[in-house]
Amino acid sequence: MSDDEIKYLFEPRTVAVIGASHVKGKIGYKVVENLVKGGYKGKVYPINPKGGNNFGLRYYKSVGDVGEPIDLAVITIPSKYVLDAVEDCGNAGVKFLVIITSGFAEVGNIEGERSIVEVAHRYGMRVLGPNVFGIYSAKSSMNATFGPDYVKKGNIAIVTQSGALGIAMIGKSAAENIGLSAIVSVGNKSDIQEAELLQYLATDVNTKAILMYIEGVKDGEKFIRELKNATRRKPVVIIKSGRSEMGAMAAASHTGSLATEDVIFDKIIRQFGALRAETIREAFNWCRFLSSAIPPEGENTLIVTNGGGLGVLAADACESHQVSLYKDMKRLTETFEDVVPSFGSPRNPVDLTGQATDEDYIKALNRALEADFIHSVLGLYCETALFSVDKTARMIERTYRNFVGRKPIAFSAFGGTMIKDAVNRLASLNVPVFEDVHDAVSCMGALYRYYRYRKDAEGVESPLSREELIKKIDLTAIRRVIKDALNEGRVYLTTPEVQSILDSLKIPRPRSRIARGIDEAVEAAEAIGYPVVMKIVSRDIIHKSDVGGVALGLDNKKEVIDAYQAIIRNCRKFRPESRIEGVEVSRMITGGAETIVGGRRDRTFGPIVMFGLGGIHVEVIKDVTFRHFPFSRREALRMIREIKGFPILMGVRGEGMKDISTLADVILKVGALVYNITEIKDMEINPLVVFEQSEGVIALDARIFLSDKGGAGA
Amino acid sequence: MSDDEIKYLFEPRTVAVIGASHVKGKIGYKVVENLVKGGYKGKVYPINPKGGNNFGLRYYKSVGDVGEPIDLAVITIPSKYVLDAVEDCGNAGVKFLVIITSGFAEVGNIEGERSIVEVAHRYGMRVLGPNVFGIYSAKSSMNATFGPDYVKKGNIAIVTQSGALGIAMIGKSAAENIGLSAIVSVGNKSDIQEAELLQYLATDVNTKAILMYIEGVKDGEKFIRELKNATRRKPVVIIKSGRSEMGAMAAASHTGSLATEDVIFDKIIRQFGALRAETIREAFNWCRFLSSAIPPEGENTLIVTNGGGLGVLAADACESHQVSLYKDMKRLTETFEDVVPSFGSPRNPVDLTGQATDEDYIKALNRALEADFIHSVLGLYCETALFSVDKTARMIERTYRNFVGRKPIAFSAFGGTMIKDAVNRLASLNVPVFEDVHDAVSCMGALYRYYRYRKDAEGVESPLSREELIKKIDLTAIRRVIKDALNEGRVYLTTPEVQSILDSLKIPRPRSRIARGIDEAVEAAEAIGYPVVMKIVSRDIIHKSDVGGVALGLDNKKEVIDAYQAIIRNCRKFRPESRIEGVEVSRMITGGAETIVGGRRDRTFGPIVMFGLGGIHVEVIKDVTFRHFPFSRREALRMIREIKGFPILMGVRGEGMKDISTLADVILKVGALVYNITEIKDMEINPLVVFEQSEGVIALDARIFLSDKGGAGA
Repeated sequence: MSDDEIKYLFEPRTVAVIGASHVKGKIGYKVVENLVKGGYKGKVYPINPKGGNNFGLRYYKSVGDVGEPIDLAVITIPSKYVLDAVEDCGNAGVKFLVIITSGFAEVGNIEGERSIVEVAHRYGMRVLGPNVFGIYSAKSSMNATFGPDYVKKGNIAIVTQSGALGIAMIGKSAAENIGLSAIVSVGNKSDIQEAELLQYLATDVNTKAILMYIEGVKDGEKFIRELKNATRRKPVVIIKSGRSEMGAMAAASHTGSLATEDVIFDKIIRQFGALRAETIREAFNWCRFLSSAIPPEGENTLIVTNGGGLGVLAADACESHQVSLYKDMKRLTETFEDVVPSFGSPRNPVDLTGQATDEDYIKALNRALEADFIHSVLGLYCETALFSVDKTARMIERTYRNFVGRKPIAFSAFGGTMIKDAVNRLASLNVPVFEDVHDAVSCMGALYRYYRYRKDAEGVESPLSREELIKKIDLTAIRRVIKDALNEGRVYLTTPEVQSILDSLKIPRPRSRIARGIDEAVEAAEAIGYPVVMKIVSRDIIHKSDVGGVALGLDNKKEVIDAYQAIIRNCRKFRPESRIEGVEVSRMITGGAETIVGGRRDRTFGPIVMFGLGGIHVEVIKDVTFRHFPFSRREALRMIREIKGFPILMGVRGEGMKDISTLADVILKVGALVYNITEIKDMEINPLVVFEQSEGVIALDARIFLSDKGGAGA
Repeated sequence: MSDDEIKYLFEPRTVAVIGASHVKGKIGYKVVENLVKGGYKGKVYPINPKGGNNFGLRYYKSVGDVGEPIDLAVITIPSKYVLDAVEDCGNAGVKFLVIITSGFAEVGNIEGERSIVEVAHRYGMRVLGPNVFGIYSAKSSMNATFGPDYVKKGNIAIVTQSGALGIAMIGKSAAENIGLSAIVSVGNKSDIQEAELLQYLATDVNTKAILMYIEGVKDGEKFIRELKNATRRKPVVIIKSGRSEMGAMAAASHTGSLATEDVIFDKIIRQFGALRAETIREAFNWCRFLSSAIPPEGENTLIVTNGGGLGVLAADACESHQVSLYKDMKRLTETFEDVVPSFGSPRNPVDLTGQATDEDYIKALNRALEADFIHSVLGLYCETALFSVDKTARMIERTYRNFVGRKPIAFSAFGGTMIKDAVNRLASLNVPVFEDVHDAVSCMGALYRYYRYRKDAEGVESPLSREELIKKIDLTAIRRVIKDALNEGRVYLTTPEVQSILDSLKIPRPRSRIARGIDEAVEAAEAIGYPVVMKIVSRDIIHKSDVGGVALGLDNKKEVIDAYQAIIRNCRKFRPESRIEGVEVSRMITGGAETIVGGRRDRTFGPIVMFGLGGIHVEVIKDVTFRHFPFSRREALRMIREIKGFPILMGVRGEGMKDISTLADVILKVGALVYNITEIKDMEINPLVVFEQSEGVIALDARIFLSDKGGAGA
């Protein structure tokens, strides 16, 4: 959908309400009432088969009677009548349908929902819902919802998958003095998805931050494309529920969302710059703070406090929220020494102690504002006998006005009823002041995370283009291997097939040769280099070690000869009937760090890549991360740095740093493979052994599964 | 201090205020004012060299002039006069000193602080502070602080190391309708510690929950003894700050606290039943909820909601807060089917949808109250058009009154200004209702964690008594080894000494023998069993493998003979001057899981035991846990279960379960060792290999360091 098209969902010139009741308390009554009370700038056409008048409006008997083009029709009638109404709207030339009515996919009526969308599309209409509370847009003063009639106008847009939560959020935002630019309920997402709403909100000048409540997304690739576009312009805060097993079940029964594994969702939205909030409170706080704070110019944060305990708590919170406290004691002392009372500390936190007066406090904050080595400030205030609350509140407001265009600042004020009231009063003036110090730090952390992303995203080299990747990789050979397997009706690749794909990708695997006699075995071992491993090759022997068909750690010619004889003897003895094709001689690999690199075609997000430390790290500690492909080399390095076991790759216990550069290449190659070859459902190199710097990697084992649906390939 | 003694700190019959100023705004003025305004039940004697009258009280020129026994003297005069005042108080027969004055250890004046305590103790007085804001006790209506004059009476006691934070907490608690039984500032803790305050508060019938803000404890062993005693009677919620590097530095400069490593503090307070809160908000919420909720009778929690999204968010939060949601769909459906509207869900969360009326809602809650398989309830309410807020508030209150004596219940109400006001109103009636669903779940989680601890603590077998442990372990032999080392001026034990201690503890180590010739080597290998490892034994060769002095994986007589010759030849060749004492032959160990078991004498907490998975798990992932010793076998098993890598010990990748029982024995033995032998500063078995069930463990390496201060032993 083009920008122009989606515009009329948010800025319709005319709105029809299908099912506009005359009975107070009915949804169809409430929607008309809200449109009128909200001062909607366009024309409202209530539709009711009985006709009539209300709110000074004429009620039309059918949408066809209006006789004017209708941009948006809100449908509130029972589900069994909806399909006919959609047909009527189509005939009347409606552009957008907002179907409030529930009783569709969320209760298993998938067919009913499908028919509605089919009919709508036939007429070129787009559908929001069903199972929504409606849409509010500040630009048109349009409250086409059955929620509260008062919506506070402002700069935050909300997109919510839960209708009930959305309605309550309208009230909550007003109660917390948070102004909204839009709030849209997406419900069952039969047609219009979050992606299209993001598209509009990203460029809407009134929207400074976007808050999304999501239980699950449908077209993940489209979603992240729009997310990426939006986060380049403004912060997007996402509450994604359904993380736990019970939560996912509840989400499924609530909106029929099929949850992608939460950790994948989490990593992918962060990849594209979204901030994930744990609680609604946190999400509101972040949106409010980020919609007004300027980008920090550097990482040096300073805490100023009149309560030592608060300072310590804030310092702890800064660590958890990745806020860096400035540490240069000398400079701090020089700057703050003369504003800190005798028992205080000029370090960071700058502790003015309970003896500080409001003058001391404001002096210290102003020093922080002027000091060019300080990039952001947390001002913490603990109620004391020496401060008058009113004076303090005025001081905080004044300081904020000084800071707002120059440095990010967040305040916390902790104390009694007067403080509580002052905090509320200041919040209504859009001053970022919080009762709990943790909330202030959490906001500062979100700000930094967001602008760190923006900075990284700006300077980034473009992701390896598909063309470059194709140039590097022999896709023709890979396609042939996969085609052959699919032709044989297989959805897995055999070891030689997997090996040939690794070779095409130029991912090294242990050198190996099949020897058909002692001389060949020795020749192979000498060519490969000691130590070697030898294994029987026979289609009749699966569990090679059970029959004595494996020998490890062979260091010289004599050992190879002995081992060859022993292997053949053992196999003849234990499996006299088996057809022996030879003995595979391969290099024995020791040392290095075991990692795992995987790729798959996710149902929601398409091509995704996984990286983790191998072995028990994956199985027990779940020390893995995910990304959507394509991405840049820098992102691959970020994946590597992100895992908990990263220090192992940097070298622990006296070991050297591992070949992280080559590892990043493998991650990109696996990404390119699953991106380009759509027939690959899942692939995994496990373990991929990573040696020390510039010594490369080796794939000890790998598996590839194909999608039985096939696919045309890219 | 006996219970009787500490009593007069909280319940003094007479209070003198040294430095009772006539000047409003002075601390000495404020303390007298607060005592008078707070309606203190005993007698107040303001002391001011100029005498005078105020608040209807006679001001005495000196404390000696009072002529009556004084239980408590509050000192507010400048630091340089404090020592004299303490002497005067001693002469006047004062029992307790509360020294508000700052300028002592917190600014480096350690000597001044020491003198005060010395003098006080000479007169049998105890000291609270210096550097405190005073003490409030509801029982005596005594507000001997310079904080707010209004303190709301109630059931929560606060002990705080930060004065400024404490004063603000008085206001905050009043603003949040949280009543206090006591609030005490401990400041520099020159004499009276948290432990003694806990001792009083544990048995104070007015105190139903205790909240502590701690930056660091001094006598850790005494603290945990009183903590254990207190948590058997009532919940103790601890905010421990100084977790991060910057936080710990700030805490050090704030109250001079030397922080024990945070993770150790964390594990030990949890071992003794404390609930650790991250934020002040959380701590207040928990205290308020736990002070009124009854213990749950089982683990089945039910969520009832009228907003699907809230239900999903709550289900997620339940997982993070260890609240178990009841899962039996059949029973849930039977119980709730007829109260759930058609589009809702009778599963857990029971989702009544936005269509539910308040009658539906109350019906569902009452079903939950009556159902004997439901043990606790989370009632979530999302503002809708169908509920009147007032009616809902009344309904929540009524439901709460029904529940309060029968099952724990917490509510969340999310919505606009009216909801916000209703939440505040209900909170003032002590109904546990929160705006954010996360807060309600967090409280329920704290309740469960506390009562799980209580249940475990009740049924527990007593920790292995010192006597039993001594019986099992040959302490005499161990003491001899340690005495010899100390006599030689060593603070480390040699390998044979460590081995002899492992033998005394009956912790297996690989069988080994020193061979002085080929025949002895073969004999040793045959006795030990193949495969064996051989290592040169020579005081002149430290890095054995560098000179070819090590041979691994020797499988038979021939290999032992060859290896013996090779080792001797290599060592003669590379180190011709070395004195060769023989070759150590020991069993080669393969398989099993590597763990680490350590013990140490912590500066704060005394004997502590550490357990973790070995190798990189300790170094990189920090997958370790700690406990104070002595503890029971059950606690040792809990340590094992607690680490992230626990699944490895349960068997992954087709491996069997490990010998967790023997592992628990080793943990107890190491605990007993550091507990009984006070000369041991630090010991570590790393790795301790744990084999499959009933196959035991083996200590591959261990080290023991002694305290250079020596010690008498236990």
